[in-house]
Amino acid sequence: MDRNSNLPQDIVRAIRSVVGDGPLALHEPRFNGNEWVYLKECLDSTYVSSVGKFVDRFESDLAAFTGAKRAVAVVNGTAALHVALRLAGVEAGDEVLLPALTFIATANAVVYCKATPHFVDSEDRSFGMDAVALRDYLSSATELRDNHCISRGTGRIIRAMVPMHTFGHPVDIEALLAVAHDFHMQLIEDAAESLGSTVGGKHTGTFGLMGTLSFNGNKTITTGGGGAILTNDLELGKRAKHLTTTSKLPHRWNFVHDEVGYNYRLPNLNAALGCAQLEQLPSFLADKRRLFERYQAAFASVQGVRLVVEPAGCHSNYWLQTLLLDESQANQRDAVLTVTNDAGLMTRPVWALMNRLSMYSNAPKAPLPMAESLERRLINIPSSSGLLSVAP
Amino acid sequence: MDRNSNLPQDIVRAIRSVVGDGPLALHEPRFNGNEWVYLKECLDSTYVSSVGKFVDRFESDLAAFTGAKRAVAVVNGTAALHVALRLAGVEAGDEVLLPALTFIATANAVVYCKATPHFVDSEDRSFGMDAVALRDYLSSATELRDNHCISRGTGRIIRAMVPMHTFGHPVDIEALLAVAHDFHMQLIEDAAESLGSTVGGKHTGTFGLMGTLSFNGNKTITTGGGGAILTNDLELGKRAKHLTTTSKLPHRWNFVHDEVGYNYRLPNLNAALGCAQLEQLPSFLADKRRLFERYQAAFASVQGVRLVVEPAGCHSNYWLQTLLLDESQANQRDAVLTVTNDAGLMTRPVWALMNRLSMYSNAPKAPLPMAESLERRLINIPSSSGLLSVAP
Repeated sequence: MDRNSNLPQDIVRAIRSVVGDGPLALHEPRFNGNEWVYLKECLDSTYVSSVGKFVDRFESDLAAFTGAKRAVAVVNGTAALHVALRLAGVEAGDEVLLPALTFIATANAVVYCKATPHFVDSEDRSFGMDAVALRDYLSSATELRDNHCISRGTGRIIRAMVPMHTFGHPVDIEALLAVAHDFHMQLIEDAAESLGSTVGGKHTGTFGLMGTLSFNGNKTITTGGGGAILTNDLELGKRAKHLTTTSKLPHRWNFVHDEVGYNYRLPNLNAALGCAQLEQLPSFLADKRRLFERYQAAFASVQGVRLVVEPAGCHSNYWLQTLLLDESQANQRDAVLTVTNDAGLMTRPVWALMNRLSMYSNAPKAPLPMAESLERRLINIPSSSGLLSVAP
Repeated sequence: MDRNSNLPQDIVRAIRSVVGDGPLALHEPRFNGNEWVYLKECLDSTYVSSVGKFVDRFESDLAAFTGAKRAVAVVNGTAALHVALRLAGVEAGDEVLLPALTFIATANAVVYCKATPHFVDSEDRSFGMDAVALRDYLSSATELRDNHCISRGTGRIIRAMVPMHTFGHPVDIEALLAVAHDFHMQLIEDAAESLGSTVGGKHTGTFGLMGTLSFNGNKTITTGGGGAILTNDLELGKRAKHLTTTSKLPHRWNFVHDEVGYNYRLPNLNAALGCAQLEQLPSFLADKRRLFERYQAAFASVQGVRLVVEPAGCHSNYWLQTLLLDESQANQRDAVLTVTNDAGLMTRPVWALMNRLSMYSNAPKAPLPMAESLERRLINIPSSSGLLSVAP
C-alpha cells in the first residue's frame, strides 16, 4: 500500500473518537475500591512493613486468581525475575535466552545472576519469542553435552529461556515449553504485563517452572511498586519466600541466615493496596476489553495501521492497546509519536531492542528480522481501564 | 562481680517500672501526623508509583534534615548499600571491610557487587568498628601496591570499609576516616540505624563518600520499606539516582538505558509516608531520649548489667535501648531473653556474628575478641518512641 500521509492525523482522530477530549496518560491506575480502607487499617494497626496480614492475603489472593499453587509477593517485577532465575539454577557464566524485544528488567535480572542474556527473535502475532524460529536456531547454534544445551558460539551452557507476554498478549507458550524440554533448559515466564491473560483458560505465568508478575504503577493493578513469583512447585515457592526474606531461619529471637538472600519482601502497606486492587481486577479487565472493542471499531477504517488483537485461543488482558504500522508506513512512526503526544495523547514506541543498548551490544544473539521490523512499527496508545468510565 | 542469680527478674522489674504493664514490642512505628493525609493525596492523584511529588520532597527533606547535599530515596537500606558500594568502585574480586557485628544486609550488599566481605572487630563504646585495632591489623595484614590496599592473606584489593552505627550509636567516624585515608580505601557509612544521630553536630552518614539509611518498619521512622543514599558529592548523587532508576536516559518517549541499572526507586506511596514521618522525627527523638533517661534511672541499681549510653561527643538517636551484661553474667543471656520474652517484654540478642554464618564462615577476618564478647552480652529491650506517651 502507498504511504498514508494523513496517518498521524487519522490516528489522533480515531483515538479521540473513542476517548473524547483532554490530555490522556498511557496507563493510569484506578482506586475506586477498598484501597482507602485497607491503607487506613495498616496505619491504625501500625503494621506497614515486613509483618502484617495483607502480605499473606495478597499472596493467597494472587494464587487463587492465577491458579498457581503458590505466589510470593516481592518488591517489584525485577526482583521476582532475579530470584526466579536463581532458583531455576542460573549460575555465573551461563546464558539465558530472552526476546530482544522486551523491557530492560528481563535482561538486567540475568546479569544480576552473573549470567549473559542471549537474544532471540519475536513472532508477529504475540510479539513474543518465536518458537519455530527458536527451534531452528537452537538446532544449528547449540549442541547437547552432559544433558546441557551448549552454545556452539560461546561454549556456555544455555540454562533457561524467559519468554515475555508482550503488552499482555500471551506468547505461544505451549510451543516454547516443547522447545525448552527438547533442548534441556528451564522456562521462566515473564508475565509482568499479563496479569489476567490466559491460554486455553490457564493463566500466563503458571506454565513454566516459575512465572513473574509486576504491580508497578503503569500495570493493570498496582501496589505502588511490587511484583510476585508464581509457581506450582511448593518446594520452590518455599525457597522463593526464604530467599526474598534475607534467608533468615525462624527463631524466637536469634538472627541466623543460612545463605545469601535478598531484602525483596513486599511491605504490608503495598500489599494492602494490592488486595484492594485485586478485588477490582475482573472489572478492570472487562473495561479494558471494552476499550479494545471501541478502538477496534474506530481503527477499522484507518489505512496503513492495524489495532493489535489477542492471539487465537488466548484471552489477553489488553494491558497496553497497540497499533502496528504497515511496513510501508514504518517511516512515519516518529511523526505519529510527535503528533499524538503534541495533541495530548500519550503514545510511545516499543522499547529499543536489547541488543542495541551499549551494555548488551556484544551479547550473543540470533538473527532478529521480526524484532527489528516490530521495533519500527509498534506504537502503544492510551490504555487506562478507566478511560470509558465517564464516556461509555 | 559474682553471679546475680536474680538478674532476669531484676531486668523485668526495671523495664516494667518504666513502661508499665502489658506486652511490648521491641520497636513499633507511630503514625500521629500527616500520614493519612499524604497517603490519601497519593490515591486521589493516582500517583502512587514511580512518579509523584512525595519522592522529590522526601529526598529534599532528608537532605535538609541530615545536612547532606543530596539524598536519593530507594526501596530499602540493602539497595542503598548495594548502589553505594558499586559507586565507590567496588568490583568483582575486591574485598570490603565490615564489622563482624552487623546486620546481614551489610555483608550481602558486598556479595551483590561480586566482592568478598572481610570482617573486623568492634570497640565496646559504640559497638562499631574499632579504629585503633583496625589500624594495627591493616598495618600487618596489608600492603600498599599501585596505590591500592592489598590483603597479604588473599592478594585482593581492599577497596572500601563500611562502618555501621550500631543501634544508633555513632561509631568513631573521624578516626576511621583517617584509617581509610591512610590505607587508600573508600569509606561508606551504614547509617541504617542512626537517623538523627550526630557526631560533633554533624549527621551520621554524611562523613564518608556516601552514607545509607533505612526506613524499615522497625526503624526510628518508617516508609513501610525504604532507604536512602546520602552524599555530599552532587555528581555521585546524580549517578545514584540514575543507577537506581534502571539507568534510563530521559526522553519524551524512547526507552534507552545506558548501563546495567536497578529497579530500586522508592514508590511515591512509601515516600508519602516518609514525608509525614520525617515531620515528626524531632519529637520521636526527644521521646526516645526521655525513654533512655527513664531506663537509666531504673537500671542504676541493677547489679551485673549496664544500660548503654551514647559515646562522648556524640548525640545518639537511641534507636534500640541496649543492655550490656557484665562478663560475669554473660552465661545468663539466654535466661534473660527467655524470662523477659515470657513476661511479654520483647527483647533480643545482637545478630550472630557474620563470620559464624555458613556462607561467610570462610571469609577473611581479623581477630574478633571484642565482637565475640559483645555477642554474648548485648540485649536490646523495648524501645518504641511511643512507650512513654501514655505514661509520662
